[in-house]
Amino acid sequence: MKYSFKNDYSEGAHPKILEALLRTNASCQAGYGADDFSQEAIALLTEKINHPKARIYLIAGGTLANLTIISAMLRPHESVIAAETGHICHHETGAIEATGHKVHAVPVTDGKLRVSDISSILAAHQNFPHQVKPRMVYISNATETGTHYNRKELNALFRYCKKNQLLLFMDGARLANALTAETSDLTLADISRLTDIFYLGGTKNGALIGEAVVICNPRLQNDFQFHMKQKGGLLAKGRVLGVQFTELLRDDLYLDLARYANAQAMRLKKAFQDKGIKFLADTFTNQIFPVLTHQQIQKLQSGYDFYIWKEMEGNRAAVRIVTSWATDAEAVSAMIREIENL
Amino acid sequence: MKYSFKNDYSEGAHPKILEALLRTNASCQAGYGADDFSQEAIALLTEKINHPKARIYLIAGGTLANLTIISAMLRPHESVIAAETGHICHHETGAIEATGHKVHAVPVTDGKLRVSDISSILAAHQNFPHQVKPRMVYISNATETGTHYNRKELNALFRYCKKNQLLLFMDGARLANALTAETSDLTLADISRLTDIFYLGGTKNGALIGEAVVICNPRLQNDFQFHMKQKGGLLAKGRVLGVQFTELLRDDLYLDLARYANAQAMRLKKAFQDKGIKFLADTFTNQIFPVLTHQQIQKLQSGYDFYIWKEMEGNRAAVRIVTSWATDAEAVSAMIREIENL
Amino acid sequence: MKYSFKNDYSEGAHPKILEALLRTNASCQAGYGADDFSQEAIALLTEKINHPKARIYLIAGGTLANLTIISAMLRPHESVIAAETGHICHHETGAIEATGHKVHAVPVTDGKLRVSDISSILAAHQNFPHQVKPRMVYISNATETGTHYNRKELNALFRYCKKNQLLLFMDGARLANALTAETSDLTLADISRLTDIFYLGGTKNGALIGEAVVICNPRLQNDFQFHMKQKGGLLAKGRVLGVQFTELLRDDLYLDLARYANAQAMRLKKAFQDKGIKFLADTFTNQIFPVLTHQQIQKLQSGYDFYIWKEMEGNRAAVRIVTSWATDAEAVSAMIREIENL
Amino acid sequence: MKYSFKNDYSEGAHPKILEALLRTNASCQAGYGADDFSQEAIALLTEKINHPKARIYLIAGGTLANLTIISAMLRPHESVIAAETGHICHHETGAIEATGHKVHAVPVTDGKLRVSDISSILAAHQNFPHQVKPRMVYISNATETGTHYNRKELNALFRYCKKNQLLLFMDGARLANALTAETSDLTLADISRLTDIFYLGGTKNGALIGEAVVICNPRLQNDFQFHMKQKGGLLAKGRVLGVQFTELLRDDLYLDLARYANAQAMRLKKAFQDKGIKFLADTFTNQIFPVLTHQQIQKLQSGYDFYIWKEMEGNRAAVRIVTSWATDAEAVSAMIREIENL
Repeated sequence: MKYSFKNDYSEGAHPKILEALLRTNASCQAGYGADDFSQEAIALLTEKINHPKARIYLIAGGTLANLTIISAMLRPHESVIAAETGHICHHETGAIEATGHKVHAVPVTDGKLRVSDISSILAAHQNFPHQVKPRMVYISNATETGTHYNRKELNALFRYCKKNQLLLFMDGARLANALTAETSDLTLADISRLTDIFYLGGTKNGALIGEAVVICNPRLQNDFQFHMKQKGGLLAKGRVLGVQFTELLRDDLYLDLARYANAQAMRLKKAFQDKGIKFLADTFTNQIFPVLTHQQIQKLQSGYDFYIWKEMEGNRAAVRIVTSWATDAEAVSAMIREIENL
Repeated sequence: MKYSFKNDYSEGAHPKILEALLRTNASCQAGYGADDFSQEAIALLTEKINHPKARIYLIAGGTLANLTIISAMLRPHESVIAAETGHICHHETGAIEATGHKVHAVPVTDGKLRVSDISSILAAHQNFPHQVKPRMVYISNATETGTHYNRKELNALFRYCKKNQLLLFMDGARLANALTAETSDLTLADISRLTDIFYLGGTKNGALIGEAVVICNPRLQNDFQFHMKQKGGLLAKGRVLGVQFTELLRDDLYLDLARYANAQAMRLKKAFQDKGIKFLADTFTNQIFPVLTHQQIQKLQSGYDFYIWKEMEGNRAAVRIVTSWATDAEAVSAMIREIENL
Repeated sequence: MKYSFKNDYSEGAHPKILEALLRTNASCQAGYGADDFSQEAIALLTEKINHPKARIYLIAGGTLANLTIISAMLRPHESVIAAETGHICHHETGAIEATGHKVHAVPVTDGKLRVSDISSILAAHQNFPHQVKPRMVYISNATETGTHYNRKELNALFRYCKKNQLLLFMDGARLANALTAETSDLTLADISRLTDIFYLGGTKNGALIGEAVVICNPRLQNDFQFHMKQKGGLLAKGRVLGVQFTELLRDDLYLDLARYANAQAMRLKKAFQDKGIKFLADTFTNQIFPVLTHQQIQKLQSGYDFYIWKEMEGNRAAVRIVTSWATDAEAVSAMIREIENL
Repeated sequence: MKYSFKNDYSEGAHPKILEALLRTNASCQAGYGADDFSQEAIALLTEKINHPKARIYLIAGGTLANLTIISAMLRPHESVIAAETGHICHHETGAIEATGHKVHAVPVTDGKLRVSDISSILAAHQNFPHQVKPRMVYISNATETGTHYNRKELNALFRYCKKNQLLLFMDGARLANALTAETSDLTLADISRLTDIFYLGGTKNGALIGEAVVICNPRLQNDFQFHMKQKGGLLAKGRVLGVQFTELLRDDLYLDLARYANAQAMRLKKAFQDKGIKFLADTFTNQIFPVLTHQQIQKLQSGYDFYIWKEMEGNRAAVRIVTSWATDAEAVSAMIREIENL
């Protein structure tokens, strides 16, 4: 059987998380997020973000987080701006539109949204009241193409948003990977200061399920649990989320897992670079997108599973290689040897 | 600390389920329900329902199941009929209305919907096209008040629905408790024959999360996964659901757990009956609703946690006592002694 | 052919309105409500309501007004309380639910909502966050059963709403009939002071189409035209609404038409009373609901068209008789003779 | 005061239509489209489309028609493909998304959608079930940029749609202008054969309000009036629409009005062409888009009102000049003289 680099949710949970689920299993707890473990996880995260006024909620999944947050924050005539590679644009089956809101998909090259992208959408929506009113900016960090934002970029986006009555929402399904990239200068505390709302993903970083939503802007905090319940994201056994996030946050396991995943991706990246192979974008997280000939792809596919991401000129294609906390370092070494032989 | 009879989701998962999660943890699997474990769970359930044409999907939670199913099945002008005690009426924060559909809440005494309840709604909605068009009947089994349907009742409902172009949907969050009630004559095979769609609940019967949705009516099966994904109910790590349901279904663990829960409730019921205490409804599943004086309630509350369900005449109230697979038989024995001393 | 008392929208427009449409037809005007006539109508109404901070919008129809207002004012988890006879409950094909909001339908006897009706709904929705959050109270004035509110009642409702963070919305499809009832003590100025939002109906009071929405509460005024456009209620030829409302408001034609309609209904009411016939409710607007034997109904139906409203005990039924600005006084006289002969 | 070429809804109604409203005003009619005039209009249109199985409904406006049709035809996970210039993309304040559906906006140069545009969207949406499912194709005829489809083009679109399980919907707000363009080879009968659903606009062709929706595909006809009512598009005084469409259709007044509007636009087009001025697109309906220098624009604006449509290179801009049934031929002659002097 081939070794898979297809995604970062192919295995179960990190052993420490499963152990914690076992250890806490018999404890009798209140439902719907009122359990001790959820409270502990929230306390741990509150400390790390250094933002005592923030409100934190544990929710069952990423699409649920996105649709619940966006529909809770917008009025019916308001819309959200996103990079066209953004998860909400093309990988959630119209989840945002299903709650009634238009998503403006901006073409981008590296998955990142810039101030000029936002301002061009605002400029094109001045025909009051015949057009929707852009009200929220959605960014992913790390992005779906493996890149990440730095502090200067995030600061510029946030300042622009505040000047223009826009809310800034960061999808952090792979936030730990962004924070631990060797090129990153952002911390959780920065993010809690430079966004209105964000979440820290668990599913793609060693948990079975779960994302931790942080509402930084106090004006947006009211009644959020109603929205979670209405959309189906408030688990009866909220403890399942609480136990996992407590484990991820205590001793910064979440950073260790992401750092490991990134490191494995960087080992592969270097191997491709050493062969003079180019990439779709220069990434430093757990996703790399080398551009290979179809012959090279075929050769690698004989031993490894990964997605062909984008057909390109010259009989080549960018492929997506994803590592995770569960990636076998030996398998990476073996693949590096295959790359050297390409 | 008091022993809790507040609900059936206060503990984690049944040990066999956690063991299975541990055992399968390292296996590399496809995402979004295409994993081997989900396929195995589906194969097991397909056999038990004796309905080869049914299609089965594992979904993350009960409210998600309800809102995904109902919005997937109805056109915008169609509505759903439910008992006013039904979960979708008052305990899901308007989840169904949020997808655009009216819920007709019919007053009932024992949580069960009858043909006459449905026909009265149909009779009151004949003013074409100024009123919604009732198109679906929602029933819970076991109901939120602990009662359950028998075969004759379900048969009557289904026949009426088919005659009147109505879809019959059974919320089975506590279906195993209904099937194993000593007064039950229904099987999963009956239910797959006498409903258009139903689900078998995991969350309240020993799983961490998860419900197994069975679409019996072939005309309703098309594209269901699109709806699951759009509403956020399609887990990246679908394996978490697959492993749990495989465990629950293999060797009928789901029935054993429910039977045990019911038995503990029946022990308590008998103790109340022996004291001449009446009930809100005569129930045979894992929920009982004895009507007590406030003095009696206070006395029991000194050692046990449970909800006061409904204030009643004569300074009395119905309380809700819920047992589960995790209920301690010793604690039940101790409470029985307290009841005897009331 | 029988004379019809079926409703108050069976004829076209009052002649003065048609004349105004003819007179202004060739004038070249801006679209979407920016025309001179709409501005004139708004200025006239602003004066009458004595509320300079109110904002007024002309919208194409009653269901459009209801669904646009309610969806614009509520967040996704908020709901609206209405009398079960309210138009939004049973005569708009789920228009409100289709925008995502639950409607609480309160049983009432005379079409009017009282403080106790509202408080009972609030009391039943305290299970945070598992239930919707009631946020708006919808009342019709005149009601669908022909009754109307007086100042004391409206004052009590408004004060209760303000104490409980509820918005008070008055559907005024037949508001002129309420204002001109002989038992009325309310003025437009009162209503603009004692509601958050209301509308003055044109369709049922001599216009071809149109309702004038008045947003009294300044915090609700933002961006309302976006909602109108999104829901399809912002007419390209907004002038059609402007011309009609200018005509209705100038010289208080709207009151004259309603007063005439009421007077014709009162003549019929007196005739029934003189025969000792009872009514479903004691009404003073343009709708009466005498309770007749089926024999009496049959006799009257030989010459007149009207709806049978509600079957009642003793082989009797309440019928609905509606008059309008267009009702022929001679036809009323003729029917009175028929009533005398019953 | 300047003469306006800003749009085709600046005046009231064609005199014949107002006369008909006057003539029929006193007639007592059933409400909600059951009146004699609506029936007559439907009979006239049924004959013209030569499609006895089609079902026709008169609805209050264009945005209402679009949102009602699209939401009635699609299931929640289905989407609609449109040219980015399409009215539903940028001029209806997210009306379609507000009903829950994604709109794919395809960049086009002349307002027209081609088979290759549709196939590229289909090709990009094969990631089942993570993406919406394109199900409907929306085209405008005439388009928002003044062009129109010919029979061969429409035939190609319709055949492609049928092969790919797509519904073809034609927004005909300016359909009469398309039909009477000198370059047109399409008839109403063709359109009823080559679309699943379309509408014939009244508002922009001499009526006060109203569009006639034609559902050609019998499988889509069920329950359409429920949707009209729910969305607020079913007028109580449906007669207002019936009278107007009867007048427009009888003796083909609708074609005469459109032909006149087109002719005036063509006179202006020729004047621009004679000066060597280019156009954004080569149009033959009532909208032309000459590309002028800002100096030329300023000169023309001293006597005429029109919109600047699109800034272009070389200090130039395309302007939009719209004619209508109400355009004064003398004013056109005067403007032609101004153009000659540019």
